[in-house]
Formats: sequence, structure tokens, C-alpha cells
Amino acid sequence: MTARFVSKRNLEFLLYEVFDLLSLTKHAYYREHDRQMFTMVLETSLKMAEETFLPILAEMDRQPPELAAGTVKVHPAVRKILRDFGEGGWIGSIHPESVGGFQLPLMLDNACSFVFSAANYSAIIYPGLSKGAAGLIINFGSQELIDAYIPKLLSGEWQGTMALTEPQAGSSLTDLTTTAEPTANGHYKMRGRKIFTSAGEHDGVDNIIHLMLAKIPGGPPGVKGISLFVVPKKRIENGKLVSNDVAASEVYHKMGYRGAPILGLSIGENNDCRGYLVGEPHQGLRYMFQMMNEARLGVGMGAAAIASAAYYTALDYTRQRLQGRKPTEKDPSKPQTPIIEHADVKRMLLFQKAVVEGSLSLLMQCSYYADLVKVLPDGDEKRRYELLLDLLTPIAKTYPSEMGIQSVSQSLQCLGGYGYCDDFPVEQYYRDARIHPIHEGTTGIHGMDLLGRKVTIKDGAAFQLYLAEIRQTLERARAISTFQPLANQLEAALTSLEQVTTHLIGLSQSAGTEHFLADATLYLELFGVITMAWQWLIQGLSAHAALEKSPAETDFYQGKLHTLRYFFRYELPKTLALTSILMDTSSLTVELDTKFLG
Amino acid sequence: MTARFVSKRNLEFLLYEVFDLLSLTKHAYYREHDRQMFTMVLETSLKMAEETFLPILAEMDRQPPELAAGTVKVHPAVRKILRDFGEGGWIGSIHPESVGGFQLPLMLDNACSFVFSAANYSAIIYPGLSKGAAGLIINFGSQELIDAYIPKLLSGEWQGTMALTEPQAGSSLTDLTTTAEPTANGHYKMRGRKIFTSAGEHDGVDNIIHLMLAKIPGGPPGVKGISLFVVPKKRIENGKLVSNDVAASEVYHKMGYRGAPILGLSIGENNDCRGYLVGEPHQGLRYMFQMMNEARLGVGMGAAAIASAAYYTALDYTRQRLQGRKPTEKDPSKPQTPIIEHADVKRMLLFQKAVVEGSLSLLMQCSYYADLVKVLPDGDEKRRYELLLDLLTPIAKTYPSEMGIQSVSQSLQCLGGYGYCDDFPVEQYYRDARIHPIHEGTTGIHGMDLLGRKVTIKDGAAFQLYLAEIRQTLERARAISTFQPLANQLEAALTSLEQVTTHLIGLSQSAGTEHFLADATLYLELFGVITMAWQWLIQGLSAHAALEKSPAETDFYQGKLHTLRYFFRYELPKTLALTSILMDTSSLTVELDTKFLG
Repeated sequence: MTARFVSKRNLEFLLYEVFDLLSLTKHAYYREHDRQMFTMVLETSLKMAEETFLPILAEMDRQPPELAAGTVKVHPAVRKILRDFGEGGWIGSIHPESVGGFQLPLMLDNACSFVFSAANYSAIIYPGLSKGAAGLIINFGSQELIDAYIPKLLSGEWQGTMALTEPQAGSSLTDLTTTAEPTANGHYKMRGRKIFTSAGEHDGVDNIIHLMLAKIPGGPPGVKGISLFVVPKKRIENGKLVSNDVAASEVYHKMGYRGAPILGLSIGENNDCRGYLVGEPHQGLRYMFQMMNEARLGVGMGAAAIASAAYYTALDYTRQRLQGRKPTEKDPSKPQTPIIEHADVKRMLLFQKAVVEGSLSLLMQCSYYADLVKVLPDGDEKRRYELLLDLLTPIAKTYPSEMGIQSVSQSLQCLGGYGYCDDFPVEQYYRDARIHPIHEGTTGIHGMDLLGRKVTIKDGAAFQLYLAEIRQTLERARAISTFQPLANQLEAALTSLEQVTTHLIGLSQSAGTEHFLADATLYLELFGVITMAWQWLIQGLSAHAALEKSPAETDFYQGKLHTLRYFFRYELPKTLALTSILMDTSSLTVELDTKFLG
Repeated sequence: MTARFVSKRNLEFLLYEVFDLLSLTKHAYYREHDRQMFTMVLETSLKMAEETFLPILAEMDRQPPELAAGTVKVHPAVRKILRDFGEGGWIGSIHPESVGGFQLPLMLDNACSFVFSAANYSAIIYPGLSKGAAGLIINFGSQELIDAYIPKLLSGEWQGTMALTEPQAGSSLTDLTTTAEPTANGHYKMRGRKIFTSAGEHDGVDNIIHLMLAKIPGGPPGVKGISLFVVPKKRIENGKLVSNDVAASEVYHKMGYRGAPILGLSIGENNDCRGYLVGEPHQGLRYMFQMMNEARLGVGMGAAAIASAAYYTALDYTRQRLQGRKPTEKDPSKPQTPIIEHADVKRMLLFQKAVVEGSLSLLMQCSYYADLVKVLPDGDEKRRYELLLDLLTPIAKTYPSEMGIQSVSQSLQCLGGYGYCDDFPVEQYYRDARIHPIHEGTTGIHGMDLLGRKVTIKDGAAFQLYLAEIRQTLERARAISTFQPLANQLEAALTSLEQVTTHLIGLSQSAGTEHFLADATLYLELFGVITMAWQWLIQGLSAHAALEKSPAETDFYQGKLHTLRYFFRYELPKTLALTSILMDTSSLTVELDTKFLG
């Protein structure tokens, strides 16, 4: 059966019809795979998600995590999931065979992550973090580190983490104060505090391996002095695991996403914490960004996934729930209608479908770019995908995160009072989803990243590539008469985006950086809406082609075409307001004296 | 001290400077009151809210309500609050002295409700429901009912409720099936099921008095056959309380607003439930609407109040939290800046202030209208305020509810990761606030009420009055040079609203009711933004006048002027998108075949 938290058909549509997963197998790294293998992997993920992840969704949410005897008791299934994931090759899925990995394309791996996240977002966090931590060691660590940590991370016996944030350094990593003092024995003596470390301590594994940012005393100030370390909870001494002086100091009580505990860590309180440098000193942030960029796509994926699960809950509910009658039906003795037939409910559902499937489309495209960056030889083509991926990452993280919240909220609204109660999982989705605009860089940070860095670097090379990509799609669209008005509408929005961009860059020269970046969040929002319109046009073109070719699966493809039309009819016009706001030259916020706020 | 969940200064500004609470005292009903009395009432509410309500905000949230031995154990403070409220005259505050009330203007009473709701929304629900239930009995019930129920309701010994919703009749009240069979003894035999009844059962009172909608067999079909009954949990027989066969059948586990239990009720399972008709048969919905309209303002008030509490939490946090530096400051050794100084954070805070204070302004205006409707003699003036109040009620309910959620979400975002944890109350506010677009009529229902009824009744008389009111404000604004561009901007938006309205009414004739109402929710949103712009202009004019008159309290008034500018700069442009969407003639949603949704 098709699980009703994701659409397998839609995943296949994106993997094989809209983008081209199979084309990756012509590259040496992915040569061993074929469609049959990909199908098996995706189907296994659906089966595991439905049978193992979904049934414990509510259970994992209900008990707030408590710190006792130095650890956090998590749901007993966590240990089993990690071991099963290890045995099934899911933690090493994207990693090289040489270290025990499976060399799966990131695109397919992310499609599977989407499936797992839709079933139970908290549960996938554990193996997901280990996968990311292992990636850093594999790519930048010494053979010694690889030998010491990778087998146990990939087997699911040990947990990997990302330990970045500190009490005084959240968005501002430049202000990290955790120190790593070199010793004569090759390792470093670690000392400091970390907060908000996901899965930073729990009883579902035998050891926790922190990939930790810290500063080597005497290094350059700011982000240039950040290095990356492996800091295990228990270190290996003479073949045995001994305590490494990393203590869980607090556990946070979160509103949602409660199945995965988030910890505060105290490092080296007894002056006996050893860290092992990954790669070169002072290169930590660069290394970490490799993981963070993947993690950012992962956040987008998780956000779209939760919205997907909420959408299908709302879809099923609105089909069954009878309430009210068509406005033209005045006879109260006539039977009530399923609420899905009310225009307002249809609009809410189309919105959810547009957000879920549009976001997933962008994320699949970005994953495809990431795969190409991984396997292409150095040169123009690789550089092109690198630039596009860099530019699109803040959007692929933020649009699903911000609009995912709205989408889940609309799912909840479709269920009325029941949506607010735990009879249905939507209220949990609503709580779970709220984390996404916060972790892996807040929306505000991504706005500044997009406008202040990605759009302007290399004289706007990435931005020009982005415009060229969309205009290629527009060209294809104009060849089909029913698509022409849509192409014209998106072309107009794109022209506005160019004008806004020119205007803002002009502002950076005339008024300074602060004015330039003041509304970067709204610029990101504008960019997001336009990017989604593009994704819907891409999907619409594939749907149109499929319908031309064969009359099968009409409903699926018509669904794509209607949602495309929905997006251009109801969502794309938001660019009118955003353009107007961004072209306004009054610098209200920058100049505001904050004492006026009350 | 000024409590940091509301601004007392802002309440006074609205009560005395923007609108004119004192002018009500020239009407006989309010003659006994004066400014000193009003001040004392408001100050008492602030003190009680801070000392009694706020300290138990989190406690009331933490334990989900469970049904045991036929009742729900609520926080022990609930009993005390109800009795204190009774003794202090708060439950009878707006009711006539003749029945033990205090004859307080609704405007001041709502200001106090705002204060209590901001401190603890769940806690104010209990006395608030009793106040509403008492109002129905006082206005429409017999002297016998008044004598039997009002004293105990107003003293806080008994709990009043509104029992409307049934499993098959939520938004569609026409489909109620609870029956009331007349008996020879004057009472009715009640039988049926109710769901989602707030405070429908709990151990903080000695009796529960349901104001219940039901149908008398043989009456007209649909809403015309609905009657209103008093249905006590325990009825009075020979001066004693005996069980009246109303059983709590289930308690809902809600995401938020958890301090007030919501019940399912089983009525007359043992064929021994007596109901007492209020007023005339078949007039129940009309009576209930009196309570519902007040309750709808109450929901708007609660929504704005929660957003207020979240705003002040965010304001205090962003003033203290150091993170990052100005974009122009590249030296990482310089101290970090309070995040309130970042332009993006200022924008988020201005948004919250705009939503909170704009909503409250509209709600005070509506309350003022409600007071005038209550005390004016029949005639044109009264009719005028009735029409304006009718028109504005769906907006005063929905704008604070929908935008309150966004506002609290932005408060949460200001706190970053901490906003997602229960170290601060914002995560609770986020959960609590989500109820508001659902209860007392969903946003979709209010959209249809506004467009399908309020805007069109009496040939658009209410809409014309609304336009005239705003244009009067515009005239005042144009007299001040700095206000002229704002007046022009609002005039343009108003013209758009007229065009959209004409267009949609035309659609009702050319394409039918379903097309006409398909986007009523978006029409309500458009109407809401314009109404808020008006409220900000009104407030701005008062602030301007105050600054002209005296140089005192500059910060407060400058805050108003900056928020006015914020609204016109960042919020009013949303009308551009909404107008474009609403003028589009393609009927995408109405014609969508729902099988395409997946």
C-alpha cells in the first residue's frame, strides 16, 4: 500500500521524470547502481518508515526528556533504529565503499530522508547526525581517525553530533570560546561549553562522537581561528573506552521535535577532555560548512516532509468529514457535503500541495546539483553547479521551513477543533515544524547569506546562472500555448527580482551595508516565491509532456497542472507586495531608535 | 510597576485619547461611573493579573486534563479565581445593577479582559464563560431563571458554558440534533451529545450551567428550529441540587490553551435531563448570537493579548541578548551588540507591535460601538453603530487571531532556540494562540459572514458607513502634511477594496454564489489589512496631536508614529497582492475535481 504520509508516485515523478537520477549512474562513483537498485532502496525506506517509524511518532513525543545519572533515557526504539540503520547501510549510504559506505546518490538518499522524516522527524535525526559527522571525518580526517570512528558510527553503535553553538555564540560563531590546547601527545585539551547539541547525550548508543568547533589559543581572531575536532564522550585508551570528561549539563524542554533530545554539554571540567584535530588547524568552519550545507538541505527536507504528512492527514480528513452544504444548497434537510468540496478547503489543500511538492522539487534539484558537484571533474560545469547550489541552499532551507509552518497550520485548520487536539497527529506536526526556521541558521541569517553573499559573489555569477536557468525553462514553456501566460507572469516577476536586486546593491553603495541588508529576510522571501514558481513550471512541463505522450495516470498529472495554476494564481502575486516593499527607500528599521518600541 | 505582558499606558491611550470612554458616562446606564472609578478598575485588573494569573500560567499548562470519577481536576487556583472574581464583581461587571451587576462599559471590561488574557488566557476563560452565559439569561430568560441561576453564576460558585457544537454540527449549526421534548411540567426533556464545550465539567465549581442549543421536535428545519435552554449539571429540586443527567463523556487533549478543559457531554442518557427554555421557542440562534458576537470580540481580545505577552517577552529578551555585530563592524574582538539593534529584529518587533496595538485599537473601537448600541435609544445613530459593529466583528475576531499567530511566531523567532524551549513562556503562547482561528467560528466561516452577509446586507449600507468612517479619518490626516502620503496610500487601498467588492458582487450575479464566496477568506484578509491601516492612522493622529500639544512622553507617541509608518511601509502593500488575486476571474478552486489532489 502507499503510505499516506508521502506520495511515492510524486517521489518517482521528481526522481525520474522531472530530474534525472539515472543520469548520475554514468559517473564512475555511481556506476554500480541502476534503476532496480534505486527502486529497492526507496521501497525499503517506505516500508521501514511505515512499519518502524510511524507507529512510535506520538510515543516519542509524549515523554519530555529528562537528564538522570548523566544521560537521557530515550525511547527504546532509538537503539534498534540506529542498529537497523547501521546494518541496512543507511548511515553510510552516501559514503564511499572504501570506508564501508554504499555510494548512493545524495538525491536518492534525500528522497529516503524525506520519507523517514515524514513518518517521524525526531527518529531520523539520530542516524542523520551520525551520517553527517562521519562525512566530516571521512572527507577531512586522518586515516587514524577514520579507522577509529567510522566503523562504529556507520554501524549505529555510536552516535555522531555537531557541537557548534555556545551560550554566547549562536548565530555568531565568530564568538566561540571553547578552547583546544595542543599537547605534546598529539591530541588537544578541550575546555568549554556547548548548548543545543542535538542527540548530544542519550542511552540509545554506547558512545557519542562530537564533531566540535573550538579555538586553538594564539590562532587568528574570529571565524578564521576556528578548528574542527573529534571529541568523543568516551575515548579509546589501550583498546578500551574510558570517560573523556564530556558531561551533559542540561537537557532542553522543547515544544516539539521532542523525540530527539537537545543537550547542553560541559567539556573538560576536570581538565581531562581530549580532542583530535580534523584536518588542518583554523579550517574548522570551512569543513563544517560542508556538513552544514548538507544539513541545510536536510532541514528543508524535514520541513517539507512534516508538511507532507500533515497534508495527507488533512486530505483524508476533509474527504471523510461531512459539514455544511454548497452555498447554493439552502435546504437543510439535504445531506451534508464532505468539506473537501468547499472551495475554501480546496484552496487550503492546494496551498499545502503547492508548498510540499514545490519544496520537494527544489530540494531534489539541489540534491542533484550536489551529486554533480561531487562527481564532476574540476572545471566550468562543476563550478556552475557549485554556484547554483550555493545560491539555492538558503532558499531550499528557508522556503520549506517558513512555508512548511504555514502549510501545517492550514492542515490543522482543515481539521477544525480536532486539529487542535491530539486525536490526530497534526498538532504534533505543528509543534515539530516550528524548529525549522531556527536551527541550521535562522531565517534572518539565511536572508543575509543570500543577499549579502550568494547574490553578490563573483560579480553576481551565481545570480546570473540562476536567471539563465529560469529563462531556459521559460523558453520551454513558451513553446506550449497554455503555458505562455504563466511564462509571461514569471518573466515579469523575474524582471522585478532583477530590479530589486539592482536597487538593493545600489543601496549598499549609496547608504551602506546596513541599509542594504535591512530587509534581506523579505528579499529571501521574494526569491523563494519566484524559485517555487519556477519549480512548479518545471513540474508542469513534465506533467504536460507525460499527458501528451500517454493518457495514463491522468489524475496525477492533472493534479500537477492544477497545482501549478494554483501557485501562479494565488502565490506568485505575493511578489507584487514584496517588490513594492523592497523598492521603498525609506530606511525605517535601520534608523529606528529602539526606545520607541516600549 | 508596569507589568510586562501588557502596556497600561497603551490601554489608557486607547481608552481616553484615541476613543472616548468617558463620553459613555453621559448615558444613563453608565452615569454612576467616572474616570477615577475606571482607573481603579483597570489598575485592579493589572494587579490581579500580575499577582494571581501570571504566576500559574505554566502550571496550568503542564498537566493535561483527565476525566476521572465524572469530573476533571483543574488547577486548585481555578476555584479561588472564580470566587475572587465573583466577590470583586468581575463576573457581573457588565450586567445591570438590578441583577447584582456593576454596569461597567464593555469597552473598559474588554480592556480588563485583555489584561487578564495576556497574563493567563486559560484562567480568564472560566469567569468569562459565566459572564456570557449570565448575559443570555439576563437578557432573554424569565425572572424565574434569573432568580435561580444569576446569583450563583455571578458569585463564581457555579460555572456557565456555551454548549453549541455537536459531532455532526460544528460550523454547520443547522445540523444540530440535540432534542428538547416539551413536558407538561414546563421543562423540556433533553437528549443528545455536545462536543468541545469549554469548561463543560470541572471540579472548581459546585455546579455547571450549560446554555445549550437544541431543537424542539416538530419545529422548523435548519437554524430556524433552534431553541436555547438552560441545562444545569445539577438541577434544583425542593431547594436541593440533584443530578440532571448531564455526563462528561470525554475530555480533549489540546495542544495549548490547556488550563481550561474542553469536554464532550452526553445529555439525557438516562432520560432524566431537564432543560429550561430561554425566551421564545426557535429563537435560540438569535439569542446565542448576542453572546457569540461578544465572544468573538473576546476571542480577538484573547488573541491580541497573547500576542502582547509574547511581544513584551521578545522585547525584553532582544534588549538583553548580545549576539553578532552591525554589518559594518568587521572586528570580531569588539563586543557583541544587543540583537534589538539589528534591523531585521527591529522589523520583527515593529510587526509584533503593529499587530498587538492595531488589533487592540480595533477591538476598543468595536467595544465602544457595542456600548453605544447598548445605551442609545432606537434610531439612526444606534442603527449606524449596529451596522458598523456587525461589519467589523468578523475582522475584529479574525485579524487578531490570524495575525496573532504570526506575531507570536515572530516573538518566538526573536528568542531563537530558547523560544522553542519552555525556559520562556513564548512556546506556550505559540500553542495557546493557535486556537483562535478555530473557535467562535473558523476564519473561513467569518470570511463568508463578511462577504456573503455583512458587506451586502441592506444594499451595502454597513459597507458604505465603513468607507465613510475611514474617509473621515483620511480627511483629518490630509490636514497634516506628514500624513498626506499615508492618507493617499490608504485611499488607494480603499479604492481597490471597493473595486474588489464590486467585482465579487458582480461575480455572484454572473457566476453564482459559489464563485462569489470562493475566496471570501482572502477578501477578509484584505479587509483586515485595510482596517488595521485605518486604526494605525487613527492612533497616529492622536499621537501627533499629543506631541503638538506637549513635549512630554515623546517616546510613547514616537513609538506610535513609527509603528504607523511601519504598517504603511511593510503591511499595507500586502493589499497589492490580495487585490490582484481577488480580481482574477479564473475559478480554479470551484472547478477543481478533488481527485486531482492525490
